[in-house]
Amino acid sequence: MSGAVCPVPATDAERIELGHGGGGALMHRLIEGLFRPAFGETGPEPAHDGAVLPAAGGRLAFTTDSFVVTPLEFPGGDIGALAVIGTVNDLAMCGAQPLYLSAGFILEEGLEIALLRRIAASMGQAAAAAGVRLVTGDTKVVERGKGDGLYITTAGVGSVGPGTAIGPQFVRAGDVVLLSGDVGRHGIAIMAAREGLGFKTAIESDMACLAPTVRALAEAGVALHCLRDLTRGGLATSLVEIATGAGLTIRIDEAAVTVSDAVRGACEVLGLDPWYVANEGRLVACVPEADADRALAILRAQPGGAAAAMIGRVGPAAGHGQALAEAIGGARVLDMLSGEQLPRIC
Amino acid sequence: MSGAVCPVPATDAERIELGHGGGGALMHRLIEGLFRPAFGETGPEPAHDGAVLPAAGGRLAFTTDSFVVTPLEFPGGDIGALAVIGTVNDLAMCGAQPLYLSAGFILEEGLEIALLRRIAASMGQAAAAAGVRLVTGDTKVVERGKGDGLYITTAGVGSVGPGTAIGPQFVRAGDVVLLSGDVGRHGIAIMAAREGLGFKTAIESDMACLAPTVRALAEAGVALHCLRDLTRGGLATSLVEIATGAGLTIRIDEAAVTVSDAVRGACEVLGLDPWYVANEGRLVACVPEADADRALAILRAQPGGAAAAMIGRVGPAAGHGQALAEAIGGARVLDMLSGEQLPRIC
Repeated sequence: MSGAVCPVPATDAERIELGHGGGGALMHRLIEGLFRPAFGETGPEPAHDGAVLPAAGGRLAFTTDSFVVTPLEFPGGDIGALAVIGTVNDLAMCGAQPLYLSAGFILEEGLEIALLRRIAASMGQAAAAAGVRLVTGDTKVVERGKGDGLYITTAGVGSVGPGTAIGPQFVRAGDVVLLSGDVGRHGIAIMAAREGLGFKTAIESDMACLAPTVRALAEAGVALHCLRDLTRGGLATSLVEIATGAGLTIRIDEAAVTVSDAVRGACEVLGLDPWYVANEGRLVACVPEADADRALAILRAQPGGAAAAMIGRVGPAAGHGQALAEAIGGARVLDMLSGEQLPRIC
Repeated sequence: MSGAVCPVPATDAERIELGHGGGGALMHRLIEGLFRPAFGETGPEPAHDGAVLPAAGGRLAFTTDSFVVTPLEFPGGDIGALAVIGTVNDLAMCGAQPLYLSAGFILEEGLEIALLRRIAASMGQAAAAAGVRLVTGDTKVVERGKGDGLYITTAGVGSVGPGTAIGPQFVRAGDVVLLSGDVGRHGIAIMAAREGLGFKTAIESDMACLAPTVRALAEAGVALHCLRDLTRGGLATSLVEIATGAGLTIRIDEAAVTVSDAVRGACEVLGLDPWYVANEGRLVACVPEADADRALAILRAQPGGAAAAMIGRVGPAAGHGQALAEAIGGARVLDMLSGEQLPRIC
């Protein structure tokens, strides 16, 4: 910018240096040369540390997620697309139309610039596909050994229509529980990539943007009482959270939940329960029984939604709210995942 | 929650374990037992992964910052208060009324819970003092040696009134440049704490919420053409950014910029230029000359604002926009900080 006056370090660095986080010329070059081209148009006014944006009126949805997944690139995605999609999905689960994203980067000294460039491009593509704009961000650099390449924290803002009321407190006895596809793929894809496990069938993350699914359900007039994307803690933890929040009992037919043979096999090897493994493109919806068939048809029509199914029903309270998995021969009580089954899965 | 059914690890852990990031019961206890009590009322609807919030209408301001400061506690503040105040200040610099904050935590395995509790309490207090609500958040845990205790990424949403138009592009030749106090304290306080430097005079961070200052200026009818808080890169980098963005020249009277004796002495020892050292409670404002006296009186009336001063003027373009520091005997061209003067200062 003022290179004629005072020389600054070369822009063509191959790795992140501490100076990339200093708030000066090197950081500006990283933002202007790498992030901004990847993220596209960022807003109606030049962004400094914040963006000023038109609001859609009505209520706002606001969410954030930090992403620490390892490895940074994995079968079916990378940390950048995951950060965009994870936050967009959280907005969609509020029944919101996702509008704007922010991204905070914590880079470890020595990170390859080429890798960062791929991840930024992936974020830009995911945002464009989801119809959201990455409008503001921040970059910090920590010393070698104080991070793990790259952590990304995204926050998202969306607009919520006046009639929208989604949450466990709106679930009613008699509602049915719909699941949008097979479960367990994201967590197993990460584990396989991390441990170099050579499963016979390659397992890809199920990572997908759920906003179009929710929009299609809402536009078809499906009464969405509760939506939950099945990330950390997996299907089982989400069901327990909904049952607890509703103060009702959820009974799931075990046979109705699809787990692919590849995921089931990998879970057996790893000693994991696929119902507790993270997903990044799956949701459960609690809807009135009258809307079930219509909703299911929509879920099955989504990419990757062939295995969508009605997996259970909501019944009256049994104590403090409980989720049960029923199979021929009996029922087992589901519990929230107690600790970390698979660390750093998202 | 369902302890009678399946025992979960004790809640009274003294240190963060990987399981605290697993999305299960241990993480729920951390959120419900530590973060929620510290942050107070979080929203009109129970928050899951997102918050649904009333909007104020008009335009939104949206910003994010990641905080990696070390040490986590320092003279005059800690990473938690810094994360709240830094993001509130970024909103204030957009001319926005700060409304909502999110917080994403990246915790290193082994972090003392007592320290996390102090930092969360500090965030809650800073948010209450700033009149913003911490409405949504996320927690991840990384293995020992993959972080540095605790990183926090805050994002903020504010509302922007219809008449507000603040930014370098609104700066005009003839504007005066006001500075809200002495410079260089935050960076030097951090350095002194980190290196165990025993300066004669204790130096505390200048960390302060700037939203009340901006509100007072706006309410007094001061035409705020540009506002900038002087964080990473310090006073000099901000002046270069404004001059570049405006395509105009800024001339600063060196003698008008206050640097305390303690900071000046420390900078001499450390070989630093206080104009490039980070602040966390200082701003520059470009306003029309006609508003200067009124604005200056308001700046001086703020806590810590005794040294507020008119430090320079905006003049016609000289090339691509330039900031000059003028002293008796000549002028030196200011440049953006090229790399990282003091790593991990915020």
